Amino acid sequence: MSHDDATSWTVHPSDALRVGAGFRLADLDPESTPGYSGKKADGEADLRVGSDLLDPLQERLHAAAIGGSATDAVLLVIQAMDTAGKGGILRHVVGAVDPQGVQIAAFKKPTDEELAHDFLWRIQKQLPPPGKLGVFDRSHYEDVLIGRVRSLAPADEIERRYGAINDFEADVAGRGIRIVKVMLHISKDEQKARLQERLDRPDKHWKYNPGDVDERELWDDYMGAYQVVFDRTSTAAAPWHVVPANRKWYARLAVQGLLLDALEGIDPQWPAADFDVAAEKARLAAS
Amino acid sequence: MSHDDATSWTVHPSDALRVGAGFRLADLDPESTPGYSGKKADGEADLRVGSDLLDPLQERLHAAAIGGSATDAVLLVIQAMDTAGKGGILRHVVGAVDPQGVQIAAFKKPTDEELAHDFLWRIQKQLPPPGKLGVFDRSHYEDVLIGRVRSLAPADEIERRYGAINDFEADVAGRGIRIVKVMLHISKDEQKARLQERLDRPDKHWKYNPGDVDERELWDDYMGAYQVVFDRTSTAAAPWHVVPANRKWYARLAVQGLLLDALEGIDPQWPAADFDVAAEKARLAAS
Repeated sequence: MSHDDATSWTVHPSDALRVGAGFRLADLDPESTPGYSGKKADGEADLRVGSDLLDPLQERLHAAAIGGSATDAVLLVIQAMDTAGKGGILRHVVGAVDPQGVQIAAFKKPTDEELAHDFLWRIQKQLPPPGKLGVFDRSHYEDVLIGRVRSLAPADEIERRYGAINDFEADVAGRGIRIVKVMLHISKDEQKARLQERLDRPDKHWKYNPGDVDERELWDDYMGAYQVVFDRTSTAAAPWHVVPANRKWYARLAVQGLLLDALEGIDPQWPAADFDVAAEKARLAAS
Repeated sequence: MSHDDATSWTVHPSDALRVGAGFRLADLDPESTPGYSGKKADGEADLRVGSDLLDPLQERLHAAAIGGSATDAVLLVIQAMDTAGKGGILRHVVGAVDPQGVQIAAFKKPTDEELAHDFLWRIQKQLPPPGKLGVFDRSHYEDVLIGRVRSLAPADEIERRYGAINDFEADVAGRGIRIVKVMLHISKDEQKARLQERLDRPDKHWKYNPGDVDERELWDDYMGAYQVVFDRTSTAAAPWHVVPANRKWYARLAVQGLLLDALEGIDPQWPAADFDVAAEKARLAAS
């Protein structure tokens, strides 16, 4: 049974949210809940259902890699404007998985050493090994988002990167890493309300950065840069998914659904013993 | 209020389990539940209570490091014989914390590159940064456990390591990393039952390794090596705790209690804003 059957999903999340030809970011309502017929309470209940499926699926992925010879892994790439809910996805969706099976890489402003290399150098080093659920909290897409909006590289270099990303991701997918690319899509008004809350609450001040407003002032430029990303890097090997994220409960449920779709697509199996079970039982009994 | 007040702990776990002068591993019953008056159902309920405390404490530790200048971190070092329950601690205790705040390092058999360096070289690289809950799944203690039992280094080098470990840990503690050292203590009979289960269940075969029985046959040597570890490396800066682990529910609750004691000892505080809150509110309103 697929996880969708027990929940209020009417369409597989990966189908409901995939970026296809002609996708227009400006036409997607950040308040909407594509593919899902339930309300908030349903979504919260379905998130718990999904958590109970996600953890054992990841364990089997891990077992197949450790005890067998499977090379499958999953890589969740999350991009978003500030406050869109990346942290909540990590806490509430990824947090349901055994921490031994998770590998999170948060990509900040590149260091001088990283800048001295190709933009994919630091990315390559963080790819998840077989059996793991890897998460990129921001990613190589920063190099064509803030990189483009703030002209952090020459225009021809930015242009080159879209193709380099596609080649890179095709190679990664070919090595058995299922790439789940997600943009969390909030409205500009919703971001204002969330930043306001961070300023209003002293226990949230540490999450606020004056630079967030600087980027906010370039909102339309960022939306344009995202549109180019979707136009040029939503490939068969690694399609994009845009998740409306004004409703946090929906965004979490949707990303969980994308991960479940990926893992159910891999369908990892318990590996056969690579030792003689009867002989080991005898050795153990004698010990 | 300390977490103990709401639960069936009668003694702080750190007091009930700390290795002091004259501690004899052979005298500690792996079935016992030191410092705790409850039964299994109480322990499971108290574990949930503790999870709801652990996660926000770690978040505050993280906030104090990111938004402030605190250098505090926690490092949980777990050592145990096979099947003693390290994985369950990671899943059920550490798994309650936001995965963004956790950094797990599993130390396997050293690589050739690692063997070419001092035994602490690979350990140093995995110390948690400020704000994180670091976990060592096995550790530098392997170098005086299997290292001693199987004579993987000359005797005088093994001898040297106890002092080197104490110096290293004192330095780490001095830099603000609270070290929580735990040995999960199971009986030889309990290990047999758990290995038997791994052989009986095809979905557990991947967890079984014939080498586990090889080490099991050296059980008494390992217990002797642990006793030397406790005698020589349970220091004021980094005391050992031996957790009876035949009852999985108790072991998980106890390790959670040790982490709560450590975090409550640090008592991390929300950092003050390092920007002008009123000015930022005005900027946001205008954006």
